[in-house]
Amino acid sequence: MDKGYIHVYTGPGKGKTTSAIGLGIRAAGAGNKVHMIQFMKGRKYCELNILDDINNFTYSQHGRDEFVDKKNPEQIDIDLARKGFEHAKKLIRSKKYDMIILDEINVAVDFNLIKIDELLDLIQEKPVGLELIITGRYAKKDIIKNSDYVTEMLEIKHPYKKGVEARRGCEY
Amino acid sequence: MDKGYIHVYTGPGKGKTTSAIGLGIRAAGAGNKVHMIQFMKGRKYCELNILDDINNFTYSQHGRDEFVDKKNPEQIDIDLARKGFEHAKKLIRSKKYDMIILDEINVAVDFNLIKIDELLDLIQEKPVGLELIITGRYAKKDIIKNSDYVTEMLEIKHPYKKGVEARRGCEY
Repeated sequence: MDKGYIHVYTGPGKGKTTSAIGLGIRAAGAGNKVHMIQFMKGRKYCELNILDDINNFTYSQHGRDEFVDKKNPEQIDIDLARKGFEHAKKLIRSKKYDMIILDEINVAVDFNLIKIDELLDLIQEKPVGLELIITGRYAKKDIIKNSDYVTEMLEIKHPYKKGVEARRGCEY
Repeated sequence: MDKGYIHVYTGPGKGKTTSAIGLGIRAAGAGNKVHMIQFMKGRKYCELNILDDINNFTYSQHGRDEFVDKKNPEQIDIDLARKGFEHAKKLIRSKKYDMIILDEINVAVDFNLIKIDELLDLIQEKPVGLELIITGRYAKKDIIKNSDYVTEMLEIKHPYKKGVEARRGCEY
């Protein structure tokens, strides 16, 4: 059996969550069982409408569609991230999945909603055969050190800088 | 109506095609009509099994599952790329799509299977409302200059460097 790898998509550029979803689609298309856990997200993103119809690609959201104050997060944001993390642990330990995506977990760690040591411990106990996908800006050095594939998305150009708003079906 | 933007995913890192597919999934989930044209690819990638079941996300392939010799491409590779480009023109001009993905077209241009000026001309005539997604390493400067969103994927770590082979359901 393939040992399974740890992938990180980080950096300020576009394409971190979409890459993870693309990887999930690829894995699901190979008959693998995929689950995506979204941290700090609570909005019904358009892509989720499609995932709803793919049998072996499930997802769960553990966040609100609200701005989280990094210096002073609300208790509900901490609680939601913690629940997401416990869910991630449970699914990883279940050994029932071929790929698990921890979407935006790097940001949850950066915001100190989840402790870096907890995530490092969880990575260490990744079962053989599981692909673990970690996304979000601000990936910590120790996460990168303990991962196999690491891609940094650089933002070379973005129309936000010209004042364009986020658009449905494109940014979310 | 939204004017629609030109997106480029380039660079040596992972996640260019998967990001484009993730964007396509997002757009399809918003009820938009998506087509992906793959250049220089002929293999039935695992993700295509899933796309086959998504009504408003179609695709076509214009390449072979063979190595293309950059210095001396075979006639069939040139012909396939040309057919793909003509197909892209037709679909873009049809104004029937909300998103068109030109997957790996940057590589086809870099290999001189498609002329850079042709691609620039096609970009210029993008209809209002169409999101045009261009992927592949080696995006030319003029393509970047004429695009709205540009993301460069950097390869920070990759297990190929430790001798790992491409794996089904993960790399293809």
